[in-house]
Amino acid sequence: MAESFGVRLQERIRALGPLCVGVDPSPAVLGAWDRPDSVEGLEFLSLAVLEASVGHAAAIKPQVAYFERFGSAGYRVLERLIADARDADVLVIADAKRGDIGATNEAYAAAWLDESSPLCSDAVTVSPFTGVGALTPFFARLSAGRGVFVLAATSNEEGRVLQRARSDDDEAVEDVILRSLAEINRREEGLGGLGAVLGATRERPRFDLASLAGPYLVPGVGAQGASPEDVGRLFQRCPPGTVLVNVSRAILNVGPERSALRDAVRTWRDNLAIFL
Amino acid sequence: MAESFGVRLQERIRALGPLCVGVDPSPAVLGAWDRPDSVEGLEFLSLAVLEASVGHAAAIKPQVAYFERFGSAGYRVLERLIADARDADVLVIADAKRGDIGATNEAYAAAWLDESSPLCSDAVTVSPFTGVGALTPFFARLSAGRGVFVLAATSNEEGRVLQRARSDDDEAVEDVILRSLAEINRREEGLGGLGAVLGATRERPRFDLASLAGPYLVPGVGAQGASPEDVGRLFQRCPPGTVLVNVSRAILNVGPERSALRDAVRTWRDNLAIFL
Repeated sequence: MAESFGVRLQERIRALGPLCVGVDPSPAVLGAWDRPDSVEGLEFLSLAVLEASVGHAAAIKPQVAYFERFGSAGYRVLERLIADARDADVLVIADAKRGDIGATNEAYAAAWLDESSPLCSDAVTVSPFTGVGALTPFFARLSAGRGVFVLAATSNEEGRVLQRARSDDDEAVEDVILRSLAEINRREEGLGGLGAVLGATRERPRFDLASLAGPYLVPGVGAQGASPEDVGRLFQRCPPGTVLVNVSRAILNVGPERSALRDAVRTWRDNLAIFL
Repeated sequence: MAESFGVRLQERIRALGPLCVGVDPSPAVLGAWDRPDSVEGLEFLSLAVLEASVGHAAAIKPQVAYFERFGSAGYRVLERLIADARDADVLVIADAKRGDIGATNEAYAAAWLDESSPLCSDAVTVSPFTGVGALTPFFARLSAGRGVFVLAATSNEEGRVLQRARSDDDEAVEDVILRSLAEINRREEGLGGLGAVLGATRERPRFDLASLAGPYLVPGVGAQGASPEDVGRLFQRCPPGTVLVNVSRAILNVGPERSALRDAVRTWRDNLAIFL
C-alpha cells in the first residue's frame, strides 16, 4: 500500500508549516500583474507562484476554474503546473469541486487521482450534493496514497441555507457530512487521507472537529476576511499537521515580482505557524 | 438581447421531441463497442452519437467527466464535439455539474457559456451546494441566450439525506432550490433559460413543478430504471416543450453500428413523444 496522503501532508506541515498557496490566475490578478488574460498569462502566473512556494509552503492549490476558461489550452498549462510541482516535491491539491453520481464519479476520480491521467494530483476537492455515499469512487483512491477533501461548510453566506438544513435525525447537513467522513476514516484506520473543506469564516459546527481523523483544508483566510487567530480558535483541539490553511489573493496581490511573492509566502507561513 | 435558451429549447422539442442523447464515452461503453479507452475511442464514440442524433434529438449532453479523464487531450475532443454539434444545429448541454463560490463561479460560467471559450455550450449543469445565490455568475449569462440547469434532486438514493433536509422554514432543500429558481425566472420574465435537473426516479417534490417557468432536464430514464410513463406522471402539468429527457446508456448500448444507434434514437424519441 502507498504511503497515505494524510501522513505525507502531516510530514510537510511539520517541516514547512500549514500554508497552502492558492494558484488563482483570475482576470483580476492577471490585470493587477499587468499580464494578459490569456494562456500565456496563466502559465506565467502559475509558474511564478509555484516557484515562490517551493520550500515554504506545504502545498499549492490550483483553482481549476481559471484554467478551464481556456479549454484544452488552459488544461495544458494546468498539466505543466502539476508536473512541475511534482518535480519540485510540492503537494498539489486540485481545487475542482467535482461531484456527480455513480460511474461519472469514477471518471472524475480517474481524471484527478489516477497516475494514468495528465491531471493526476495528490488530492482533489469534491462536492457532496449527491450525497457522501455517491463519492465512493474518490474514496477508493485513498489506499493509493491520494487525498480527497469533501466540501462541508463553505466560506460564503449563501451556502448556509443548504449546509445548515436539518436531516430527518435533526442533524445539520454539514454535521452529517463531517460525521460520515469521520466514519470512513475510522474504517480505514491510519490512512487519514480523507479530509474536509471548512471555511474559516464559518461558525463552529456541532461536530467535534478534532474527531475527523483526517485533514482540513481551510479557505477564507486573508482577502475573504478570516485571520490566523480565527483559524486557531476554530481548530484548536485538532492534532498537529491536520489543518492546511489556504491563502490565495493576499499572496497573489503582491506579485508579479518573484521576491515579493516569496516574501509574502514566508510571512503567511510564519503568521500561521504560531497557531498550528 | 439574444433569443432565450428556453425559447430555443421549446422550438427544438416541438420540432423533434423531448429527447436529449447522453454522450458518455465511459470505459464500459467503449469496451462494449470494442473500441480502445483512449482519446481515439472518445472521438469515435462522440461523433457517432452526434451523427445519430442530428435531426432526431433536441439536444446532446456530453458528460464532461469522461472527457476530463484524458486531460487536455480529452478536452480537445470535447471542443470538437461541441463545434460539430453547433455546425449540425444540435443543442449542446455540457453536463459539468460545476459549482463553487464568487469569482470562481464567474470563471466556470465563462468556461462553459461565453462565446470566447472553446468549450462554449448552449447550456451547462451546475451544482448548488454553495447555495443558489452563489450561482449568480451563471445566471448572468441567461440574457445572452445561454441556459443553466441547476441540480435539484438527483436520481441516486444517496442524495436524499441532503436534498430532503429541512431549512429553518421547514422546507426541503430540493424545494428551496426549485422555488429560488422559479423566483429568478419570474424576475427575468419570458426568458425561461434557467432550468432544473430532476431525476425521474425521485418522488415528486412538494414544489409545484409546473410553476418553474423554465425547463427540466430529466436523467434516470432507461438504464437507471425510470420509464417514459414515470416521466409523464411526474411532469404532467408542465407546459409543452419544457421537459427534456436524457437517455444515455439505453441508446449507447446498441452501438457502435451507426444504423442501430440511429434506430435507438428514433425509438426513444417516439417513446417519449407520446407523453410530452
